[in-house]
Amino acid sequence: MVTSSGAARSVRVAVLGCGNVGAALVGVLGRRTEELVVQSGARIELAGIAVRDPAKARPAEVPAGLVGADAEALVRDPGVDIVVELIGGLEPAGSLVRTALEGGKSVVTANKELLASAEGVALRALAAKRGVDLLYEAAVAGAIPLVRALRQSLTGERINRVMGIVNGTTNFILTRMSEDGAPYPDVLSEAQRLGLAEQDPTADVEGYDAAAKAAILAGVAFGYDVASDDVMRTGITEVRPADLAFAGRHGYVVKLLAIVERTGDDALSVRVHPALVPGSHPLASVRDAFNAVFIEGEAAGELMLYGQGAGGLPTASAVVGDLVDATRNRLAGTTAPAPERRPARLLPEDDLESAFFLSLDVEDQPGVLAAVSGVLGRHEVSIRSMEQDDLAGTARLLFVTHLAREGAMRTALEELGDLEPVHAVGNVVRLVGDGR
Amino acid sequence: MVTSSGAARSVRVAVLGCGNVGAALVGVLGRRTEELVVQSGARIELAGIAVRDPAKARPAEVPAGLVGADAEALVRDPGVDIVVELIGGLEPAGSLVRTALEGGKSVVTANKELLASAEGVALRALAAKRGVDLLYEAAVAGAIPLVRALRQSLTGERINRVMGIVNGTTNFILTRMSEDGAPYPDVLSEAQRLGLAEQDPTADVEGYDAAAKAAILAGVAFGYDVASDDVMRTGITEVRPADLAFAGRHGYVVKLLAIVERTGDDALSVRVHPALVPGSHPLASVRDAFNAVFIEGEAAGELMLYGQGAGGLPTASAVVGDLVDATRNRLAGTTAPAPERRPARLLPEDDLESAFFLSLDVEDQPGVLAAVSGVLGRHEVSIRSMEQDDLAGTARLLFVTHLAREGAMRTALEELGDLEPVHAVGNVVRLVGDGR
Repeated sequence: MVTSSGAARSVRVAVLGCGNVGAALVGVLGRRTEELVVQSGARIELAGIAVRDPAKARPAEVPAGLVGADAEALVRDPGVDIVVELIGGLEPAGSLVRTALEGGKSVVTANKELLASAEGVALRALAAKRGVDLLYEAAVAGAIPLVRALRQSLTGERINRVMGIVNGTTNFILTRMSEDGAPYPDVLSEAQRLGLAEQDPTADVEGYDAAAKAAILAGVAFGYDVASDDVMRTGITEVRPADLAFAGRHGYVVKLLAIVERTGDDALSVRVHPALVPGSHPLASVRDAFNAVFIEGEAAGELMLYGQGAGGLPTASAVVGDLVDATRNRLAGTTAPAPERRPARLLPEDDLESAFFLSLDVEDQPGVLAAVSGVLGRHEVSIRSMEQDDLAGTARLLFVTHLAREGAMRTALEELGDLEPVHAVGNVVRLVGDGR
Repeated sequence: MVTSSGAARSVRVAVLGCGNVGAALVGVLGRRTEELVVQSGARIELAGIAVRDPAKARPAEVPAGLVGADAEALVRDPGVDIVVELIGGLEPAGSLVRTALEGGKSVVTANKELLASAEGVALRALAAKRGVDLLYEAAVAGAIPLVRALRQSLTGERINRVMGIVNGTTNFILTRMSEDGAPYPDVLSEAQRLGLAEQDPTADVEGYDAAAKAAILAGVAFGYDVASDDVMRTGITEVRPADLAFAGRHGYVVKLLAIVERTGDDALSVRVHPALVPGSHPLASVRDAFNAVFIEGEAAGELMLYGQGAGGLPTASAVVGDLVDATRNRLAGTTAPAPERRPARLLPEDDLESAFFLSLDVEDQPGVLAAVSGVLGRHEVSIRSMEQDDLAGTARLLFVTHLAREGAMRTALEELGDLEPVHAVGNVVRLVGDGR
């Protein structure tokens, strides 16, 4: 309930979940109280913090008296104006957010998985219907003010493409593999030791995390409803040091990119895959666990937003920005712009056109190159450059192709695999940012 | 006047000035009318376009019937809700903006010179008093959604430092000098031919343009009122290819940076100067006419926003974002957050601490290095690294120092210039982003 207490009005905020981000958020709200009154127009008061285990030890900045186990009671409390959901995952987070919105509360969340699900679509519609905010700056690219930029600053903009390094774990792994020449399993172990990768790294290294963020970007930047499951996805587990070395020799770096782009006829391609990015492209210089999102707009031209994609304080910083917006909007009786979304018409995977990097291990004998080129040519995959590395008894052929259809490439690869002198079809990596 | 016309309400907008940016703005408003209704909640209607010479030929997208010479009448017209000022310079722009604000109109401007003047301070106060918006996303770094990020997204953030490449002309010149090894006058001519530099390039190459932007950033990011004239300023006219070559050999690039940073005791250093930036720093990869602003926040950590800093369409894109905000705010009866500013306590130039790159042309004889080191040492300027280039009959000594006070460095340089075997004291460039 927005109330008047002394000079400034106040809004009461419930926080669900108190891990790294929650604790950092509570800390910032405590340290910056007066600045936040100036910014938001109201005193932001904590109504309660719901956690799974209230007995667990927490940082001193988390007031013990506010910590409890009953999230359900908090989201139903009529004295609460805004709910900050930091639990993550589909349930119970989804039901709690739904209850809060139904009760006319605004919600700030960092939950990419929920937002990129079918329930996420329903929750956004519910927020619009109830005339409250559902804000999620922290769900994509952490501290980077990306969602607000797309939603407000670029509001007059027709955006043609968004390409992002939106997963810090995989960017760290690829950076270290590339700069230290270390193989994937070693760098993954290092990332796990440093706390940059989970013990089960699947969500990061297989691209699921990036796919959820791509789906959210499709909504914010293009106004299309896309679910994680509809995102074309390849992770980084197959990327080999040899691929990175080839990339380096030719002035490229390998990045795991989340890409959303218009592909004629108002269709959209939404995908996550490793890509060769030219060294002079702004995304190429994004190293280690940093995130960056590159935006191509019709009027604004090329933009890139860079920063920390994860971590307690950076994520809390994004949550605070949303909290201030939600507070100001409540005081003004308005909400952040949330235009209606259309269901996406996604480009079929086979119709996507890319230039490819491709490596083949072949028998080192005359005629092999002719056979390989013949297969590629029959599928209208034309070769832009080729080089050969001699290994023991084998040759490795490294190709870069001109633009080719994904479907044609796939069939060509199958046929290449069946050629007798081809020992192995290596990694296939798309080229991006290279004049297209 | 916000009126209801059919389905959507409308706001009436007057545009002052119709050069590149004005024409691009009118074009975007025409092409994106329906999207802007969705975003802003109102139909954005052009009330009139004031220009110096209405008879001049203009692009087809500018409706001739709306073009006139009487800016004064437009800003006094009670039927106008929002004024977009794209004239630039102090007058008549300042008086027109003042009249508009006094009349209760919101103002969107791209006028960095006006905003960074004493009148700019007064105009912001006037807007706050009248409860209207004075928005200026386009005044710093063109299309980059910087002002809104600082004002809204990073609202809970204590920002410690902002460093920006905010002048595309000088960044183009430095990039070409560095990558092509060409001397300054040649590259300046090329920039003039390409329309990237004015015939009188002073405002850009002497850092005046960047200084105005630094002053604006001091306000938006730190809440301090700073005027252009108070900004410490060095341009790029003294940068030599040899300096860039030295930088390159040691893994640095030279950038003209606008820097605003806290320097203890709530004092601020606001300055523009060429700087050596490590090649691995995100600002190092910002090439040609692009702009980028690097922000260091206490919670958010390192952020960088990159994009086009000038040009008709990119600047118009930023103006449209502001126009949508001003429209939404008018409909909701609110304004964008505009916290009160304090007068800045600026760090005296002499007290600023930097690491320096310094080159000296000296007589190639024994004892010179000892004499030079003696002078530096007496002023507590300690040397981090040194190298010697042999020229004909002369040696060039290239130093990088540890952190040293600006005042001490200045005195040391004067004394060095007086040493008999020192032929010339070359350029002095500060190091930035190198662990401090």
